Amino acid sequence: MIAQTPPMGWNSWDCYGAAVTEEDVRRNAEYMAQYLKPFGWEYIVVDIQWSRANAKDHSYEPFTQLCMDGFGRLTPALNRFPSAKDGAGFRPLADYVHSLGLKFGIHIMRGLPREAAHRHLPVADSNCSCRLAADPSSVCAWNPDMYGLRCDTPDAKADYESIFRLYASWGVDFVKCDDIAREYPHCRREIELISEACRNCGREIVLSLSPGPAPLAEAEHLKANANMWRITDDFWDEWRLLKGMFERAEKWCIHAAPGHWPDADMLPVGALRQCEDPNGWTHFTQPEQRTMMTLWCMMRSPLMIGGELSKNDSFTLSLLTNAAVLEILKAGWCAHPLRTLDEECVWISPRRDGQGVYVAFFNLGSRKHTVSLAAAEAGLPAFRGTELWTGKAVRKTGVLRASLHPHDAAVWYFK
Amino acid sequence: MIAQTPPMGWNSWDCYGAAVTEEDVRRNAEYMAQYLKPFGWEYIVVDIQWSRANAKDHSYEPFTQLCMDGFGRLTPALNRFPSAKDGAGFRPLADYVHSLGLKFGIHIMRGLPREAAHRHLPVADSNCSCRLAADPSSVCAWNPDMYGLRCDTPDAKADYESIFRLYASWGVDFVKCDDIAREYPHCRREIELISEACRNCGREIVLSLSPGPAPLAEAEHLKANANMWRITDDFWDEWRLLKGMFERAEKWCIHAAPGHWPDADMLPVGALRQCEDPNGWTHFTQPEQRTMMTLWCMMRSPLMIGGELSKNDSFTLSLLTNAAVLEILKAGWCAHPLRTLDEECVWISPRRDGQGVYVAFFNLGSRKHTVSLAAAEAGLPAFRGTELWTGKAVRKTGVLRASLHPHDAAVWYFK
Amino acid sequence: MIAQTPPMGWNSWDCYGAAVTEEDVRRNAEYMAQYLKPFGWEYIVVDIQWSRANAKDHSYEPFTQLCMDGFGRLTPALNRFPSAKDGAGFRPLADYVHSLGLKFGIHIMRGLPREAAHRHLPVADSNCSCRLAADPSSVCAWNPDMYGLRCDTPDAKADYESIFRLYASWGVDFVKCDDIAREYPHCRREIELISEACRNCGREIVLSLSPGPAPLAEAEHLKANANMWRITDDFWDEWRLLKGMFERAEKWCIHAAPGHWPDADMLPVGALRQCEDPNGWTHFTQPEQRTMMTLWCMMRSPLMIGGELSKNDSFTLSLLTNAAVLEILKAGWCAHPLRTLDEECVWISPRRDGQGVYVAFFNLGSRKHTVSLAAAEAGLPAFRGTELWTGKAVRKTGVLRASLHPHDAAVWYFK
Amino acid sequence: MIAQTPPMGWNSWDCYGAAVTEEDVRRNAEYMAQYLKPFGWEYIVVDIQWSRANAKDHSYEPFTQLCMDGFGRLTPALNRFPSAKDGAGFRPLADYVHSLGLKFGIHIMRGLPREAAHRHLPVADSNCSCRLAADPSSVCAWNPDMYGLRCDTPDAKADYESIFRLYASWGVDFVKCDDIAREYPHCRREIELISEACRNCGREIVLSLSPGPAPLAEAEHLKANANMWRITDDFWDEWRLLKGMFERAEKWCIHAAPGHWPDADMLPVGALRQCEDPNGWTHFTQPEQRTMMTLWCMMRSPLMIGGELSKNDSFTLSLLTNAAVLEILKAGWCAHPLRTLDEECVWISPRRDGQGVYVAFFNLGSRKHTVSLAAAEAGLPAFRGTELWTGKAVRKTGVLRASLHPHDAAVWYFK
Repeated sequence: MIAQTPPMGWNSWDCYGAAVTEEDVRRNAEYMAQYLKPFGWEYIVVDIQWSRANAKDHSYEPFTQLCMDGFGRLTPALNRFPSAKDGAGFRPLADYVHSLGLKFGIHIMRGLPREAAHRHLPVADSNCSCRLAADPSSVCAWNPDMYGLRCDTPDAKADYESIFRLYASWGVDFVKCDDIAREYPHCRREIELISEACRNCGREIVLSLSPGPAPLAEAEHLKANANMWRITDDFWDEWRLLKGMFERAEKWCIHAAPGHWPDADMLPVGALRQCEDPNGWTHFTQPEQRTMMTLWCMMRSPLMIGGELSKNDSFTLSLLTNAAVLEILKAGWCAHPLRTLDEECVWISPRRDGQGVYVAFFNLGSRKHTVSLAAAEAGLPAFRGTELWTGKAVRKTGVLRASLHPHDAAVWYFK
Repeated sequence: MIAQTPPMGWNSWDCYGAAVTEEDVRRNAEYMAQYLKPFGWEYIVVDIQWSRANAKDHSYEPFTQLCMDGFGRLTPALNRFPSAKDGAGFRPLADYVHSLGLKFGIHIMRGLPREAAHRHLPVADSNCSCRLAADPSSVCAWNPDMYGLRCDTPDAKADYESIFRLYASWGVDFVKCDDIAREYPHCRREIELISEACRNCGREIVLSLSPGPAPLAEAEHLKANANMWRITDDFWDEWRLLKGMFERAEKWCIHAAPGHWPDADMLPVGALRQCEDPNGWTHFTQPEQRTMMTLWCMMRSPLMIGGELSKNDSFTLSLLTNAAVLEILKAGWCAHPLRTLDEECVWISPRRDGQGVYVAFFNLGSRKHTVSLAAAEAGLPAFRGTELWTGKAVRKTGVLRASLHPHDAAVWYFK
Repeated sequence: MIAQTPPMGWNSWDCYGAAVTEEDVRRNAEYMAQYLKPFGWEYIVVDIQWSRANAKDHSYEPFTQLCMDGFGRLTPALNRFPSAKDGAGFRPLADYVHSLGLKFGIHIMRGLPREAAHRHLPVADSNCSCRLAADPSSVCAWNPDMYGLRCDTPDAKADYESIFRLYASWGVDFVKCDDIAREYPHCRREIELISEACRNCGREIVLSLSPGPAPLAEAEHLKANANMWRITDDFWDEWRLLKGMFERAEKWCIHAAPGHWPDADMLPVGALRQCEDPNGWTHFTQPEQRTMMTLWCMMRSPLMIGGELSKNDSFTLSLLTNAAVLEILKAGWCAHPLRTLDEECVWISPRRDGQGVYVAFFNLGSRKHTVSLAAAEAGLPAFRGTELWTGKAVRKTGVLRASLHPHDAAVWYFK
Repeated sequence: MIAQTPPMGWNSWDCYGAAVTEEDVRRNAEYMAQYLKPFGWEYIVVDIQWSRANAKDHSYEPFTQLCMDGFGRLTPALNRFPSAKDGAGFRPLADYVHSLGLKFGIHIMRGLPREAAHRHLPVADSNCSCRLAADPSSVCAWNPDMYGLRCDTPDAKADYESIFRLYASWGVDFVKCDDIAREYPHCRREIELISEACRNCGREIVLSLSPGPAPLAEAEHLKANANMWRITDDFWDEWRLLKGMFERAEKWCIHAAPGHWPDADMLPVGALRQCEDPNGWTHFTQPEQRTMMTLWCMMRSPLMIGGELSKNDSFTLSLLTNAAVLEILKAGWCAHPLRTLDEECVWISPRRDGQGVYVAFFNLGSRKHTVSLAAAEAGLPAFRGTELWTGKAVRKTGVLRASLHPHDAAVWYFK
């Protein structure tokens, strides 16, 4: 089964926006192979606009030139991805990533390039046409490049199949499809077409849907059609957004299970926004980063690092390589909050193997605060175990108490 | 003041859809000049898609070819409007319509052709560009041709000015601007730009906004920026739609005044849908047509005939040439319903000159039905006057009664 | 026809709240007979809680004692209305009011006293019972006295009939029924029962429904069942409320006609809140009072004075006795706003007799402001006439202009 | 901790409505002691209207007589509960239930009897008064007996304290408080007052709030203030209602934890509606009853039997005494659905002690249907264990499949 546990990897958006280059990708892949792979990290994902030659930052440009083949399928901009020359596409880069023992992913927008429709390009390996596949009134609200498809036409089906066939031939292992996860109900059928094309392309590809918030009422449809989907709008390094994730996590937690994972979005840690400022750095405090990692692991969200890895400082690296914390992601199940108040939150996650339980405390307030939990509240006779960020032991006790700094978290493994 | 009374004319949509030709327009203009002009009819309006060569019926075609000048301004398709040759645009046709003593109108969509944006065409007489004026996410939900404009740019203002300047140079007297009247709030600024361009173009042009329903809450904005605006979605020859107009008319009636008129849409009478079927004819019964004409005149909606005029039968012609009924449109004011029940409706319209009052009865039910009204209910001492469809006199009475056929109407002038 | 023009009178609420006495009523009736009757004022209305002995101000008291007969019909508290002794009810007071050439009105709540249900009292002249008529879950949100009725029972019908029969026997000419006008949809049937009981009681009684806002969607039901109904919540002497009335007036104006009048509530002028403070006085400025009187007359709202009449100063008296302004109420019809902007408003009201038109300007802003109107906008060739508050003549002009103080109004009669 | 696991017991409503007698209660208590106590059943709860002498069925009677003490506290109707004579209240009956090794519960409405307010009764052991405590506008929509309290008054607090003090003195172990759980937001404070009075009364009393649906957004408030609360409106023996419970169960499952349990309402099994028909019997099929018991146990809803126990047939008794199924209620935790489709549903519940997991399949459709689940979907290497209704063993398998009759369920324990 694909995505048996929540995917872990790196994504280019938070540090390079629309402007990431092959060099950036290789550098981060090399770092991951050396420092992170042993801890479970494996996906290297090139985010949006890799087919646009003149991309410089996080913005888009209307009516710009995109690189595409004769069938309206986007191809890497050669000035940014030199190895794509001679029609090779992302194949050489994917090969390199695979050679490091990692997996390779790319971003796509739903639909096809507007230019392909206006130019009446054919759909590859078919009698279909981009003109007939494209829905001229289905346009993304925030990106000007594409038309969504008329999903009731054979042309649309043929087009998505041709796209995934090409990407499979490049060796792509992960596709982040954008402008779709929150676009219910009108994108319901388009999600199904994309999901079918993905599953039938001849290669195991994780399908990730963005952006959020995906509607909770569509949980079963998402579980049936995607491996992960965003549960919020873009997440960045602001406390307000991190605090807000607790509400989303509570609503979605029961839908996390092997093969399909509610996605709390990238981890904006370390060196961010490099295209705007080479000194850009996360605005999150260290406690906030602990809170984020703890919540993402307890709720079993996919983990996608947003920062330029090679600039990691020791704290960032330690955050991403705490094996005991990361184990929650793979060993926990049936996790949920026990308590969600304005100032504090408590989560519990049993281990699937029956060997104990994880309990996390969060201080959501702006003052130092003591959180406490009686073992009876959790249905346990007593607590005994270890706090996983500090390694501090907890001797047998009927009431667990922790004094937490503002926005900080603690998480224990109790056997 | 322009549109001092509700505009009266003919529009090509109901009979020819997107496919009207110069020959059709000339024939209807000639008919109007001969038979209808004496009764106040004056506008000849060419509706949507006159720049598309291959139009055949009421449908649209995505990514089709539209005729335009080097500045992205649409021009008549020469195969359909031969007199437009040599860059003359609609000037020769407008000249001909003017020569008949009539006025000439055309349809436009808000925005500019998508092709003009993708081709990066310049805006006429300016340093501006169609690429910068176009908003790639502002597309019409039902027509694939155009992009709406980014109204905060100088390019958008320059573009609308260039468009109205061109049409003024052609001699256009009436512009029906589409995809805009119900698009509040996002089209609020675009309406203002278009209104300004229209008023500043150097020619008196009636500005009509479509399609409806325009939102009632925007009545003052519409009154300030347009001469007429649609209060419903497209109106056709179905009783359901005609019955529904009574509710709209009630809500909008107080906003009818010189210069600005809530618009109940074209009159689908006589020969309709000619492009689909040369024998096409209105599905309205004669009573329903009387009801429609009576309501439109009482509420003072603009009157735009939808049928092919040259095929009018004697009933249709009589409907359009009842001078006493048509006089309500110009002589009435402050009209409103006195009563709106499921089965019947009563309207009143005083004459502006103080010389009496019009009272209309409508049978909205599917059975013969007697409507009655006490003079006291209308605030009058008694009724005395004439029914205007039949010419039948009413002697002095305290209670007005009329037995009406299903869907029929009667209207009296009481002095 | 009853209420052929909007009722005009005095109501005890604004000055005496729940605590008005017979002496107060007589004093105001005498004042009206002497000073106001010649201008059309005629109703003297005793507002809420006349059956409660210990009422002192505008407040209510839960589980208090109310005076009632053996059939659960409220009777005047004898300490406050001595002439009601020996079971005479309001008969002696009504007789006195009638002797002054005026009409007499009272307030009722929908339903019957809770005590009558708990005590299982019988309904007069019937086999019915208060216990069966009362709906124990139908209670007023702001007054603790009554239960609404179970309108599908014969007991409810019998109860309302017995109530109106009693009041008719007292000589009541006007009933203000409370806790009902905004209580759609659940009070729809209760309104019908009350309306039927009122019309069948053997005496012409004006039926007024409170409090507002009555829902606009129920206009036809209200027109069929009541003579007047409140279009807002309680109106007091605050500019915010007066400004807000313009929006309501616009929505309701077409429903004003002989026999049924949208009601903008009492006029809080002169000496108010006397039970709390003998020196209480309206907070409205003189311009605001002109604005109120002008709007109420243009929209043809009923006029009910809220102040203690005997304390009127000369301005207040002049406001209530401007015959030319008051004539608008009876001579106008089909009135509506021509323009409703944030800062200004223009209304028009033709005379029913064809002898000209009234035009009103309102400055809704907090600065001096000039309002102007072209004759063409009103559909008139020119303006010529008189301003009715100042008596100032307007010579023939194509554009009417008036510089108005903040919150002030002007109104002209143009022939 | 009180309610460490979901309470299990019997409630008089489904079989006796408002009319249960002491004899009925004793008979059911005796049955429970003999046949059910060994399986964990312990509460005997007397439902609504035990203070009304003339109750006969499931209906209420407006303005009826209720038995109460001199402080407005309801007392048992002596004709129905003879042991309550001489002011003993429920003390003798509670003593008897305790003597059987069981616990005793009663129903209350929020608020105080209307009669107590109208009669101005004092509140026990205080200077407070029922008149001041009662809110005359806070009435139950479906029961005419009580007024809710004005929770900002000391009188309200004193009243609730006096009520719980009395019930504690009787030996009550369980209070089902009605007309409150779905009455957010206006009953938020009243819930807090009741909860405080309950916790401070000097006896451990389970607090249960009705009726539902309680709002999900108030989960934390409910968890803090009650031991159980209804998540739906009244549940009866209709498939439509049982099917609907799956959606509620999914939303609420994460809020079930020691001390506070979302409540899916009574189990309408066996002999129901005895007051209307001595032969009354549940309309649920045997498969439906299995589905109900399985879902209630998986979601850990309190279990309250609704049928007359002494009439249980062998199937009903077997349903209520399947120890392995009932163990899920106490041994499971963190349960949630894995899949909720129109036709089928799958739940998972790990054991708190790490000794395996429960998996339940439900056929929600009206045809025989095979449900299947891959072990990988549940995150397990394989399935091996026992089906708990049939006792049938499952040998080690990677895919679990079960063919289920319409509306039937199966549930396994996998170690």
